[in-house]
Amino acid sequence: MAMKLSDLNTPCFVLDINKVEHNATRMRATCERLQLKLRPHTKTHKTLEAALIQTGGSKRCIAVSTLAEAEFYASHGFDDILLAYPITESKIARCLDLMQKLESFHVFVSGPDGVSTLKAHEADLPPPKVWSVVLEVDAGYGRTGFDIEGQEVMDAVQTITESARMSLAGVYCHCGDSYVIWSKTDREKLQRNTVQLLCSLQNRLKDFGVTCPFGTGSTPTCSLPIDLNKSLSEFHPGNYIFYDYQQYLLNACRESDIAGRVMTRVVAHKPEKSMILVDCGFTAISHDGMRQQLPDDDFCLIQGESNLKLIGMSQELGQIVAKLGDLDCTQYPIGTIFFLYPYHSCATAAMHSEYYVHSDNQVVGKWTPVKGW
Amino acid sequence: MAMKLSDLNTPCFVLDINKVEHNATRMRATCERLQLKLRPHTKTHKTLEAALIQTGGSKRCIAVSTLAEAEFYASHGFDDILLAYPITESKIARCLDLMQKLESFHVFVSGPDGVSTLKAHEADLPPPKVWSVVLEVDAGYGRTGFDIEGQEVMDAVQTITESARMSLAGVYCHCGDSYVIWSKTDREKLQRNTVQLLCSLQNRLKDFGVTCPFGTGSTPTCSLPIDLNKSLSEFHPGNYIFYDYQQYLLNACRESDIAGRVMTRVVAHKPEKSMILVDCGFTAISHDGMRQQLPDDDFCLIQGESNLKLIGMSQELGQIVAKLGDLDCTQYPIGTIFFLYPYHSCATAAMHSEYYVHSDNQVVGKWTPVKGW
Repeated sequence: MAMKLSDLNTPCFVLDINKVEHNATRMRATCERLQLKLRPHTKTHKTLEAALIQTGGSKRCIAVSTLAEAEFYASHGFDDILLAYPITESKIARCLDLMQKLESFHVFVSGPDGVSTLKAHEADLPPPKVWSVVLEVDAGYGRTGFDIEGQEVMDAVQTITESARMSLAGVYCHCGDSYVIWSKTDREKLQRNTVQLLCSLQNRLKDFGVTCPFGTGSTPTCSLPIDLNKSLSEFHPGNYIFYDYQQYLLNACRESDIAGRVMTRVVAHKPEKSMILVDCGFTAISHDGMRQQLPDDDFCLIQGESNLKLIGMSQELGQIVAKLGDLDCTQYPIGTIFFLYPYHSCATAAMHSEYYVHSDNQVVGKWTPVKGW
Repeated sequence: MAMKLSDLNTPCFVLDINKVEHNATRMRATCERLQLKLRPHTKTHKTLEAALIQTGGSKRCIAVSTLAEAEFYASHGFDDILLAYPITESKIARCLDLMQKLESFHVFVSGPDGVSTLKAHEADLPPPKVWSVVLEVDAGYGRTGFDIEGQEVMDAVQTITESARMSLAGVYCHCGDSYVIWSKTDREKLQRNTVQLLCSLQNRLKDFGVTCPFGTGSTPTCSLPIDLNKSLSEFHPGNYIFYDYQQYLLNACRESDIAGRVMTRVVAHKPEKSMILVDCGFTAISHDGMRQQLPDDDFCLIQGESNLKLIGMSQELGQIVAKLGDLDCTQYPIGTIFFLYPYHSCATAAMHSEYYVHSDNQVVGKWTPVKGW
């Protein structure tokens, strides 16, 4: 493909392969330094190519967010896959197929209901397979998972260890609360607190005669780890492979580390409103972020144009104005290309059926994510 | 496919075929009553099946929002297609291919730049074809299009009519401003104003010796037309085929007319926060709407559960709480199915690669929209 970025139709999602590789290498180095196993999450990209880069080519040890991802990776030679999503009855049949196909497939239990669901399907497992269970715990984020200090998680451990058809593969904690913390002091306090709570649970399990890997995730906390993380065994970030405007605002990366951008062109002028229109509407970039307290109440960053702001979108049009003063449309002729750093790359990547991969300005490939559920 | 809705994996986008047909029939009847031609927009659904229903099987006279849609419909026997999007240089090559393939293909000119772009490519047209131009005018919405009262639109008409390789196919006005008007009085005032401005332009063109069809669109104004609309020649709504929560709030439809819903299941409980978690996250329903002034600051409507509210989403999880009082999780066991009416069906449909079509509770088909640009 002897194409340049400027040959592409817009809007499109473009990925800088050098940044993707840099971000992957850096996270692997972080994990090596802290002696942690890296179980990268594939939810941000959902492609074979990025998962190969994340796993250093091993195709082993990943976390996924949907059954569609699990099946996609399983059918392409990946193994040691964790479906990091609360297990429920309606997912059992497809999980049983994955148990058959994979050497190592782990399911996620986020509450007592998950344990009973698995228990009810022990007899359906292809012998000698057992349910490999990762328990999700909640250390304060307040979304899903067992209360990390409660009794229910101990009851779950007991049920699992007593069963001949279940094994405890690990404990998983997503630090989603790190996404609303903007100061280093507060973030490190959260991190210490989370790791300490996980260590307490680790000790309670030890007293109970059980040991297993303990993992913690979220791109901000894994990108900016604390030494205490060494007490645990695993990191499982996902977004770090692309990063985005949000991660940059959280200090988890530099602006120059953001690998995924939406490329868009100016398609119309509205001089009487000092506004230009680009071909990036709400089908090409997510609204995600716009409810946050952002600088300028913005939901993307326009690369190299810090005084410009995307103020609204309809289906196929984005409206850009100046933050300060009046935008002069003649400075941005029809056809002018802009690159938008999305606020949330997971949400924006999900809107694209193809990612155009480039090295500098040269298009070097096209990656196709798996879709659906 | 002998499946029931409850057999489907969730999340998924489901379409009630009877409502789709009812909405299509009603809009056709409205147009017949007002003696207007209906040029349905396909941007909301992007499927063959819904376009067949919208055109009453004729496969003629549609508006599309992307070149990908135009090419998709052209390759499936549709004709008389309007690319209702500002024409720019980067779209010319594919438009020339469409000119070759279709009997009747119209391009959209939203400013002086569009006219010059077409002019520069007259010689590239396959003889005896001419550019069939629809002029977009702006009657106050303030997004794209020529100022309806300005001189530039007259200059464009002159250039087009003087050229041997261009013809004026019509004038198009999208009433996007109808989406922020909640009272009948204000909406009708806007409608009268828009039609009167269009009639003035019609008269200016007549004085200039030119007549052509005048069309106006937006689902709220086409669903609730005024008699004055008879002075024009065309309606070009799109969203009406599915409708959504927004249209219901705008009085453009009844709740029971909303044909497209996201089906989701309860996957976890968080009793200490009186919250249930469903498997509809931001990959399955759009954030669109959440910046609006909505009842309860909501961005979807949970069918038959008027006291429940979706308060936030991560990638694959939605958080539901009670508006008044505490939600009792035991009322909604894991696996409970909810149907969400999206705030904006165009935005939510765009997130799905498949739509499941049902009649009552029976799944009767699967439609696949065209993606990309």
